[in-house]
Amino acid sequence: MKIKQLITGILLSTCALSVSANTAFKEPSDAIKYRQAAFSMISVQIGDMGAMLKGKVPFDAEQFKMRANNAAALSKMPWEAFYAGTDKGDTSALAAIWSENEAFVKKAAAFAENADKLALAAQTGEKAKIGKAFGAWAKGCKDCHKQFKD
Amino acid sequence: MKIKQLITGILLSTCALSVSANTAFKEPSDAIKYRQAAFSMISVQIGDMGAMLKGKVPFDAEQFKMRANNAAALSKMPWEAFYAGTDKGDTSALAAIWSENEAFVKKAAAFAENADKLALAAQTGEKAKIGKAFGAWAKGCKDCHKQFKD
Repeated sequence: MKIKQLITGILLSTCALSVSANTAFKEPSDAIKYRQAAFSMISVQIGDMGAMLKGKVPFDAEQFKMRANNAAALSKMPWEAFYAGTDKGDTSALAAIWSENEAFVKKAAAFAENADKLALAAQTGEKAKIGKAFGAWAKGCKDCHKQFKD
Repeated sequence: MKIKQLITGILLSTCALSVSANTAFKEPSDAIKYRQAAFSMISVQIGDMGAMLKGKVPFDAEQFKMRANNAAALSKMPWEAFYAGTDKGDTSALAAIWSENEAFVKKAAAFAENADKLALAAQTGEKAKIGKAFGAWAKGCKDCHKQFKD
């Protein structure tokens, strides 16, 4: 619970940014590119971990740990780039992100939290545990996209 | 020294991948996009931390820590995507990356190591220490680009 509260707290404070500009981005298009870069990198982690778990490529515990650590770090990053004004442009973001922002932030926090759990599970080297944690994290993509992505 | 050896070890083992394909990428263009996404995200961390240190935007210790943690994670990520065959395409990577690979890997390891040091410095909240660590890390960009980027 402590970790969950911490991550939710971080994301909620990050989302305080979502009503104003973010000093890291000059233009909304910079923010859009940033979050798309983060999601594209997350997708690479999912793809390789999924392939290892499905046996499409050999399972390599060290490589899996690296992927899970990458996933944990990257899963915290896109959210700050969803501030007001970044709904227009070359983006698939739906307006619901801002009109139902609390639900969006909760899903983002759950995604980040599940990635941390995956990184911890990867440390154990236990494939059953890892597979379960991977599934819980990875399903967060679709779960969020169906409500918030075009 | 222990951290340095560890990071160099990780990067050297990652660069074992650089002679063969990487299971995470179907096509060389996927790897090129991945490393470019990582560098673009690194650039955002540099920009915002630099602006805070130069007083262009208010210094926010918590935001700086978040940026430094992002930097530490991201600075480990691009390197696996420089494997043989990813020298052609929409890339500014110079052939020297592969012909002088040992020097490239050393610079990559130093960059990752300096980002870890920056993340540690950010925890102290001491601006002089943070500024020094930021400079040491950020100069790694130019230092590597002049030899390895078009």
